[in-house]
Amino acid sequence: MITSMTNPKVKQVVLWRDKAGQRRKDQVFLAEGWKMFGEAPADWIKEVYLSEKAYEKREGDKELWEKLERTGCELVSEEVLSKMSDTQTPQGILMVLHRPNYSAEEILSAPGGLFLVLEDLQDPGNLGTIMRTGEGAGVNGIFMSKGTVDLFNPKTVRSSMGSIYRVPFIYADDLQEIMQKMKNNGIQTFAAHLSGKEYYTGRSFTGPTAILIGNEGNGLSDELAEQADAYIKIPMEGKLESLNAAVAAALLVYEAKRQRNM
Amino acid sequence: MITSMTNPKVKQVVLWRDKAGQRRKDQVFLAEGWKMFGEAPADWIKEVYLSEKAYEKREGDKELWEKLERTGCELVSEEVLSKMSDTQTPQGILMVLHRPNYSAEEILSAPGGLFLVLEDLQDPGNLGTIMRTGEGAGVNGIFMSKGTVDLFNPKTVRSSMGSIYRVPFIYADDLQEIMQKMKNNGIQTFAAHLSGKEYYTGRSFTGPTAILIGNEGNGLSDELAEQADAYIKIPMEGKLESLNAAVAAALLVYEAKRQRNM
Repeated sequence: MITSMTNPKVKQVVLWRDKAGQRRKDQVFLAEGWKMFGEAPADWIKEVYLSEKAYEKREGDKELWEKLERTGCELVSEEVLSKMSDTQTPQGILMVLHRPNYSAEEILSAPGGLFLVLEDLQDPGNLGTIMRTGEGAGVNGIFMSKGTVDLFNPKTVRSSMGSIYRVPFIYADDLQEIMQKMKNNGIQTFAAHLSGKEYYTGRSFTGPTAILIGNEGNGLSDELAEQADAYIKIPMEGKLESLNAAVAAALLVYEAKRQRNM
Repeated sequence: MITSMTNPKVKQVVLWRDKAGQRRKDQVFLAEGWKMFGEAPADWIKEVYLSEKAYEKREGDKELWEKLERTGCELVSEEVLSKMSDTQTPQGILMVLHRPNYSAEEILSAPGGLFLVLEDLQDPGNLGTIMRTGEGAGVNGIFMSKGTVDLFNPKTVRSSMGSIYRVPFIYADDLQEIMQKMKNNGIQTFAAHLSGKEYYTGRSFTGPTAILIGNEGNGLSDELAEQADAYIKIPMEGKLESLNAAVAAALLVYEAKRQRNM
């Protein structure tokens, strides 16, 4: 059992937790809790750390313990787990996971696909919530600009509620290139834009559809918005200038879902 | 100009920032920034603090400075404003505001009204986002249980983006009583509930409508849900257990708006 705060493994996990660059270099990310462990694809799991108390209490159901036997795990003291954890009240289990590698071509080939394109989103909670909502609406993939906040940030992983395992995503070097691929695949692209003339409820999203969402403060860049087939807007009463980015994304992907189920 | 951190006014503002109980006792709340100042109803404004630098730079437009002449303000040093502020990068203007007093009867008398009932929401960001989205969708009022997170929390005020000035709200001692008043006013009540059999898109929200949203982890209490005329659910693909509470509220109030505009 690891009890020392200066154990090299512990120091490595803390580094991965705190340093986006280190996570990227080693192509890993962290996740915590029994739910996140239970839902993790087996081949993503690199390391599992279990607290002494969690081991003794045998929390979680039988299936989880069987999975734990297959993956193996390292016992650590409560203090060590607290040290590694990103939360105030750690659940006693923490994983280091390999990052998945998705191909844009494969994602875009989904028949009748529904996609999100996110440009420079900055709020980790928004990004995790968009991924969670995207799973709910049946989104086939999420494309993000390089300037988008790190999806592997512990807060984003947490707010994704396991969707990070299931919704394919790509950080694109060049979103313009993705837009071109979308055009080539017959995917209609809609920019959520304050200068949109048409309401989102007035367009058909029943064919292959991509929805573009911009940065929280500045919206989409002109360069990217101009690539879209149409600008759409969400009607707003009152004196608001805009909606929260995760709310806007939710309304648009769920409108697509509504239309597709009709 | 106030330059001392121990000035009684400064200490009072810090107390209001940090202590929900003190804010409640004195029936005030804080807001920051030029936008929040510009949108604040004149009769809500109790005190305004302006940083020396903001005064010298004359940031903001002419109208704001005219408003500032009418409300009056107290000059403070940058250090003092930073001390009072809840943000990392204060905008140079901070207000103490009186709380509004709404009457449930008045709110509920809105013809064809659209209402939200929030039970025990715990996330300040969610609450502010719901208020912001509610304004966008034309919600006529928000009723919250006593156990709901403090709307006057600086984070909630910030994420409301000024909606707190415009969307009427009430912390109800007893939500059951509000539900009874809704029934008496011919308002149909819908509980967003995982055990709902009908999808939200299959119900009509064109008449007077209230939508009930529960706590992030536990949903609505049985006691409150049972009072609703119908349970509705939001369809979800994938393996999700639920959506984020602010996202769920957004989808429901915007579905009402969509139906009403058709």
